[in-house]
Amino acid sequence: MTPPTPIKPAQFTLTTGPVNCYPEVLSALGRPVLYDYDPVFQEFYEKLSLKLQRIMGAPQVPVILQGEPVLGLEAVAASLVGPQDHVLNLVSGVYGAAYGFWLSPHAATMTELRVEYDRVITPDLLREALAAHPEATIVAMCHHDTPSGTINPLAELAAVVQAHGALFLVDSVSAYGGVGVDLEGIDVLVTGPNKCLGCPPALSILAISARAWDHMKANPRAPRGSILSVLDWEDAWKAGQPFPFTPSVAELNGLDAALDRYMAEGPEAVWARHAQTAAAMRAGVQAMGLRLWAAEEAFASPTATAIRLPEGVDETALRSAMQNDFGVVISSGRAETFNRLVRVGHMGPTAYPMYAVIALTALHGALSRLTDLPLSLGAAIEAAMAAQ
Amino acid sequence: MTPPTPIKPAQFTLTTGPVNCYPEVLSALGRPVLYDYDPVFQEFYEKLSLKLQRIMGAPQVPVILQGEPVLGLEAVAASLVGPQDHVLNLVSGVYGAAYGFWLSPHAATMTELRVEYDRVITPDLLREALAAHPEATIVAMCHHDTPSGTINPLAELAAVVQAHGALFLVDSVSAYGGVGVDLEGIDVLVTGPNKCLGCPPALSILAISARAWDHMKANPRAPRGSILSVLDWEDAWKAGQPFPFTPSVAELNGLDAALDRYMAEGPEAVWARHAQTAAAMRAGVQAMGLRLWAAEEAFASPTATAIRLPEGVDETALRSAMQNDFGVVISSGRAETFNRLVRVGHMGPTAYPMYAVIALTALHGALSRLTDLPLSLGAAIEAAMAAQ
Amino acid sequence: MTPPTPIKPAQFTLTTGPVNCYPEVLSALGRPVLYDYDPVFQEFYEKLSLKLQRIMGAPQVPVILQGEPVLGLEAVAASLVGPQDHVLNLVSGVYGAAYGFWLSPHAATMTELRVEYDRVITPDLLREALAAHPEATIVAMCHHDTPSGTINPLAELAAVVQAHGALFLVDSVSAYGGVGVDLEGIDVLVTGPNKCLGCPPALSILAISARAWDHMKANPRAPRGSILSVLDWEDAWKAGQPFPFTPSVAELNGLDAALDRYMAEGPEAVWARHAQTAAAMRAGVQAMGLRLWAAEEAFASPTATAIRLPEGVDETALRSAMQNDFGVVISSGRAETFNRLVRVGHMGPTAYPMYAVIALTALHGALSRLTDLPLSLGAAIEAAMAAQ
Amino acid sequence: MTPPTPIKPAQFTLTTGPVNCYPEVLSALGRPVLYDYDPVFQEFYEKLSLKLQRIMGAPQVPVILQGEPVLGLEAVAASLVGPQDHVLNLVSGVYGAAYGFWLSPHAATMTELRVEYDRVITPDLLREALAAHPEATIVAMCHHDTPSGTINPLAELAAVVQAHGALFLVDSVSAYGGVGVDLEGIDVLVTGPNKCLGCPPALSILAISARAWDHMKANPRAPRGSILSVLDWEDAWKAGQPFPFTPSVAELNGLDAALDRYMAEGPEAVWARHAQTAAAMRAGVQAMGLRLWAAEEAFASPTATAIRLPEGVDETALRSAMQNDFGVVISSGRAETFNRLVRVGHMGPTAYPMYAVIALTALHGALSRLTDLPLSLGAAIEAAMAAQ
Repeated sequence: MTPPTPIKPAQFTLTTGPVNCYPEVLSALGRPVLYDYDPVFQEFYEKLSLKLQRIMGAPQVPVILQGEPVLGLEAVAASLVGPQDHVLNLVSGVYGAAYGFWLSPHAATMTELRVEYDRVITPDLLREALAAHPEATIVAMCHHDTPSGTINPLAELAAVVQAHGALFLVDSVSAYGGVGVDLEGIDVLVTGPNKCLGCPPALSILAISARAWDHMKANPRAPRGSILSVLDWEDAWKAGQPFPFTPSVAELNGLDAALDRYMAEGPEAVWARHAQTAAAMRAGVQAMGLRLWAAEEAFASPTATAIRLPEGVDETALRSAMQNDFGVVISSGRAETFNRLVRVGHMGPTAYPMYAVIALTALHGALSRLTDLPLSLGAAIEAAMAAQ
Repeated sequence: MTPPTPIKPAQFTLTTGPVNCYPEVLSALGRPVLYDYDPVFQEFYEKLSLKLQRIMGAPQVPVILQGEPVLGLEAVAASLVGPQDHVLNLVSGVYGAAYGFWLSPHAATMTELRVEYDRVITPDLLREALAAHPEATIVAMCHHDTPSGTINPLAELAAVVQAHGALFLVDSVSAYGGVGVDLEGIDVLVTGPNKCLGCPPALSILAISARAWDHMKANPRAPRGSILSVLDWEDAWKAGQPFPFTPSVAELNGLDAALDRYMAEGPEAVWARHAQTAAAMRAGVQAMGLRLWAAEEAFASPTATAIRLPEGVDETALRSAMQNDFGVVISSGRAETFNRLVRVGHMGPTAYPMYAVIALTALHGALSRLTDLPLSLGAAIEAAMAAQ
Repeated sequence: MTPPTPIKPAQFTLTTGPVNCYPEVLSALGRPVLYDYDPVFQEFYEKLSLKLQRIMGAPQVPVILQGEPVLGLEAVAASLVGPQDHVLNLVSGVYGAAYGFWLSPHAATMTELRVEYDRVITPDLLREALAAHPEATIVAMCHHDTPSGTINPLAELAAVVQAHGALFLVDSVSAYGGVGVDLEGIDVLVTGPNKCLGCPPALSILAISARAWDHMKANPRAPRGSILSVLDWEDAWKAGQPFPFTPSVAELNGLDAALDRYMAEGPEAVWARHAQTAAAMRAGVQAMGLRLWAAEEAFASPTATAIRLPEGVDETALRSAMQNDFGVVISSGRAETFNRLVRVGHMGPTAYPMYAVIALTALHGALSRLTDLPLSLGAAIEAAMAAQ
Repeated sequence: MTPPTPIKPAQFTLTTGPVNCYPEVLSALGRPVLYDYDPVFQEFYEKLSLKLQRIMGAPQVPVILQGEPVLGLEAVAASLVGPQDHVLNLVSGVYGAAYGFWLSPHAATMTELRVEYDRVITPDLLREALAAHPEATIVAMCHHDTPSGTINPLAELAAVVQAHGALFLVDSVSAYGGVGVDLEGIDVLVTGPNKCLGCPPALSILAISARAWDHMKANPRAPRGSILSVLDWEDAWKAGQPFPFTPSVAELNGLDAALDRYMAEGPEAVWARHAQTAAAMRAGVQAMGLRLWAAEEAFASPTATAIRLPEGVDETALRSAMQNDFGVVISSGRAETFNRLVRVGHMGPTAYPMYAVIALTALHGALSRLTDLPLSLGAAIEAAMAAQ
C-alpha cells in the first residue's frame, strides 16, 4: 500500500518532541539578542542558571550546553566516563541501548542490564546486576525511554545505586518537567527545555553532583576546548566569566520564559496534568479496542503514550492520515519499535487531557480508513474523560 | 583604576557578534515549532537548504549544523582532516592560530604560515609556503580574523590554493554575508547566520565541494554518530530523510527569514552598505586622532573595525563607559589583541553608516573621561560622513 | 447554585470572537511600527488596501477604520443614513435589533421586518416588506446574527433589494471570511479582521459601492472631522494622502499577514473548513441529546453554533465549568438569548472539525456536573466525526 | 525642485509618533488573544487599569478607550462639554486650535486665549483670561503642542485654573510619560500609550477626576451607546462588568508590557533621559547654525524638538533626503507650521541622547545637499554631547 503524501499543515503537534512551545516562550524568542560579553547578558545568564538550580533543587549550579539534549548526552559520556570506569548501562528501550554506543568507547568495561522494551528496570533487577558487577563505577539509565513510552522507577533505582556507591547518570530528557524528579542519588541528570518545559530544541541542561564534577575533573580524557566539553562550562554561569563559545542567546531567552511559566503554574500542577493526560490517553486507547505498548500500565510514562499498531496497519499510512485528514501529528517508533507502535506525546503545552481526546479522535479516524477492526471512538472518548 | 560596574542596558549593540537581529528574524523566531518528522517541516528544511545553495552559489547543497559556528569549525576539522593529511594553516590572527589546535591533532603534519596580527596573508606568501610544503593536502584559513578586524584576500588566495591542488578550508564566519564570496576554489566554507545575516547564534552553515565530501568520506576517522559528524548530515536536507538528531527548529525559522530578507534587499546592496559603514568608521577613527589596528587600511574588514587602544586606556573601562554613559556595546580584543584594541562590528542590521557615527560618538565620549589625549569628535563625525 | 469563580487560563478559545489569532498574525503584530507619514508605510497601506479590494472583489477600494467593527457599524449608520432616508431594518436577532438604535436617529423613518430570533429573513418576507414600504431607500441587515448563531441568505436577499433599488447595508462582521460573500447587490458591507480572518479586534473593514459613496457625500449630516466619519477616509488609502488620524499600525501589520495567509490557503478551502466544522458541531450537539438554537439546521451559521441551554442549567455555571475543568472558553448569549443558549465559534484558526470535538467534549463534561439529563458523549463525538 | 521619491526603509524613526515600540511591547503584542468575556482577560483588564491608576497617581481608575488618542480627545469633548458650559480654550499651537473645533459645538460659549505658536501660555495670561471670563466652567489646553514642539507650564497653569474653580481638560498625548505630570488640579488628562510609553497607536488613556465624572454624568448630551461615549466605560475596568464593545486585546497586552517597563526603569529616569535628549538636540541644532522654532529655549518640549526650516529649503525634500540617504525619518510641521519647521521626536525608545546625534547627522547631511548655508556638523555633535 502506498501511503498518501502528507503535506497539509497540522493544527495539533502531539509528538514526543519537538513539541510546540508555550506562547510565553514564543514571545520571548523574539526578545533583542544581546552580545554575550554584555554585562547585562552575563547577569541574565547567571540569574537564569541560579533560577534553574533553584527549580531543579540541584546542589550545584546546573550547566546549560548549547545544543539539543543529544549534545548533553554525548558530552556527558565523553566527559564523565574515563578509562578507569566500569559502566553498567540499564537498557529498557532503544535510547538506553543507543546510549551504550556513546558510553562504552570511553570505559574500561561496559555491561548491560536489559529488559524487554515494553517493560522497565526494577530495583531487584538492578540490585542483582550490581551484585554481579560490584566493580561498576557508573550506572547509566534512560529514565523515560521515549521510543517505547515506558518510564523507569527513578527514585527507587537511585536508592539502589546510591547504596552501591556508583555514580548514577540519568537521561531524563523526555520526562523532566513532566514528572517530579528528586535529584537525591542522581549524579548527572541530562535534560532539555524542548520537551516538557515547552521550548524549541537547541539546549541541554545538566544537573551535576559535586562527586560527578570531581569524577570528570579526574578523567584525563574529559574533553576540553571542544563542543563536547562539560568542564569548560563549569564556571561559565558566573557573570564576568567568559563563555567557552557563544551561547544561544534567543534560546536562553525562551528557556527563561519557560522557567518563569513553570514556577508560576507550580510544578506539582504541571506534573498533575501530565499524569492526567496520560491516564486519559491510556484509558481511551484501551477502550477503543487497541493495546498499549507497555506490558503493564504502570510502566507507561506520564509524558507519552505508546500504542501497539494493529496487525496490518502501516505506521506511515496511519500517521499520514492522522495529519492530512485530522490535522494531528504524532510520533512513530524508532529502531526496534518502528512500525510496531505509534506514540502520542503529552509534554508541556499539550499535557492537558483534552489533547488525549484530540489524539484519540484522529487515531480512530485514521485507523477507520486503514483497517476493518471494530474500534469504538465513542467508548474511547468516554473512557478518556472518565479517567482523568 | 577600577572600572565602573556596567549594568545599564544599552540601546546599540555594535559588536562583532552576537549582533542584534533583523526584525524579520525576531518575528520569525516566534513561528510555531514543528515536529522534525512532520513532512511540512521536512519540506521546509529541504527548501531552506536549497535556498541556501542558490544564495551561496554552492555546487552542493550546504549543510546546516545545529550549533553556532564553532561547532561547524570543530566538526569540519574532525571530519575533513585525516591521518594522511598535511595541513598548511594560514595564521593572520587569534582565530586562525586557534584553529590550528583543532586541525593539528587530526593531521599527519601541520605547518603554519604566520603574519603579524595587523597584516594579512598575501598571494605571494602563500605561494612560497606551498612551494615549501608541496605535500600540503589542506590549506586552512580564517577569512576575517575577527579579533584583529583584518580580512584576507580570499579570491586571490583561493586561486593560489587551487593552482596547487590542496583543499581550501575557509572560516568565513564573520565575513560571509557582509562581503561577496565566490566559492570557486573553496572546498569548505564555514559560516553562520549570526553575524552578517542578522540571526541569533545557534547554527553553522557549511558549503562543501564534491572533492571535500569525497575527502571526508575517505577519512577513516571522520566522526559518525556524534554531534561532530558532518557526514551524518549529508542527506539530511532531503525531505523524507531522517535527521541525525533534532534540528533547532526556531533558529531555522529565523535563518529562513534572514535569507529572504537578504535576497529582497539584494546581496550587492547589503555588501555595499557593509563597505560604506566600515569606510565611514575608519575615516572617523583616524580623523578623531586614533589609529586603526590594521597596518594598512586595505587590510581592514568591511564587517568590523579594530581600533588601537591609546596608551594607558584600559579596555574594560572604555567599554564600560561606552555602555553605561552612551548606551553602546562594542567588542574587546581576544588573546594577543586583548587590551590592545577595541572592535566595532558592522554586521547585518548595524551595517549602515549611521552606526559608525554612533560608535564614534560613544567612543569619543568614553575616551574623554579616561584620557587627556586631544581627540576631536567633530572631525571624526565629519570625516565619517564624508567617507561613505 | 453559586457558580465557581473561573480563573484558570484555558487552552482553547472557541468563542464567537475575539478568537485567538493565526500564528502568522501574532508574529506580524511584532513587526517594527512605522511612522504613518513614512512613505514606506504609506506604500504599505496602499498595497494593503488594494489587496483587500482584490480579495473582496470590491468595485471600490475598501475603507479600513481604526476601531473594531462596532466603530464601522456606528460610523456607517451616521454617514450613510440621512434625513431623507427611509430605512428598512431586517431583524432576525439581537444585533440586527440593536443596529436599529444607531440607524433610526439619522433617518426620516425606520421600519423593521422581524422574525423570531431562531429563524432567518426569507426573500419572500423581504419582498413583502419592500412592497409595503416602497419608499425604503436603505435596507439594513445583520448577515450572521451572532447572538443566535443564525445566518441570513445574503445573496438571495441582495437580489431582492437590488430589484427594489434601495441601498443594501450589511453587517457581515462575524461571517465574512468564513463563508463566501459576493458583493453584487451589497452597497456597504461592514466586517473586521477579528473574526474569521483570525486577527485581534481593533479594525473595521468597509466595502462601499459607488452608489453608497455618492449617497454618503450627499448626506448633509455625514460626519466630518470625527472618528465617526467614513468620508474622511475615502482617499486615505492612496500613498501620499494624509490620514485623518493615526492608523493602528500594528493591527494593520496583522491584517496584512492574515490576508496573505487567507490567499495562500485559498478562500474556498477556508470556507469549506468553516462549513465542515459547523456541520460536525451541529451533528454532535444533536447526537449528544441537546437542541440547536436555530429552528432549522439550515438557518445555522457555518461560523458559530448556538445550542439551547437545557432546562435548569445556568449558562454562567456551564461556561465556568467548561473553562475551569476542561480548558475551553465559549460564548454566552446576549440580551434576549442570554441564559437561553451558549455559542461555540468556528472562526479562522478554530474552524477545523477537531475543534467541534473539543467543544463537544467540554460541553458534555460540564453539563454532566450540572444536570442529570441523559447525554451521550460517545454518540456526540461519533456523529461529529461522521458529519464532516 | 522636485523632491526625490523616498522609498527606502529607514533604520531610525525619530518622529513625534508613531514611534517605534520598545522591544518588550513588540513581544507582548504577540501574546495569545483572549476572549473579552474570559474571566482571565477581565482580571487582566482590571489589574491593568489599577496599574495605570497607580502609575498615574490618579484618584479614580483611568479609562482606556479603544482608539488612538484623537478618539479620547473627541470623546471627552463630546462627553464633558455640555450646553451649560463656557469653555476657555488655550491656544499655543495647531493642536490647541484644532481642539476648539471639537469643543465649541458642545458648549454654550467658547473663548480662546491665543499666543504665537512659538510661545507658551503663561500663568499671568491665563489669570487675565479667567478674570475676563469668570463664567468659564472648563479650561482646555494642549500640554505639548506637537506641531510646534512647545510645552505649556502645566503645573503652574493647573494651579491658576484650580484657583478659579473651572474644570481643567488637558491633552497631554505627546508629553505624558516623557515628563512628570502631577494630576493635582487636572480634571481630565487625555494621553495614549503610543508616544512616550513606546506602544503602537490604537488606545487612549483618560484620567478623570471625580468632579469631571460628575460633570459628565450631569451633561444631558454626553454620548451613550457610542464609540464616543466615555460614560459607558466608567465601570468597564471591573472584572465581571461587561465591556461596551470589544477592547483591543493585543494593544492592551502591549500597554501592559509598556507600563511594566516604565516602572522597572523608573519614571524619573525615563523623564531624565527625555530631557537630556532634548537638551542635546537643542544645543546641537543651534551649534550647527540652525534656529529652534521655540521663541525661547524654555518653551521647547523635552519630548520633541522643532527646528525652523532655513530659507529656501523645502521640508519634503529635506525629509526625503534624510530618509533615503541617511536612514532617518522625522516629522514635518502641520497646518500653520507646515513647511516652516521640521520636528524630531524624543519619545520612549528614542529618548536617549544618542538619537539626537543621529538626527543631527542626518539633518546636516540632507541640508548640505539642499542649501549652501554654512552648517557645521562637527560643532553640532560636539554641542549635543556637551549638553546632556
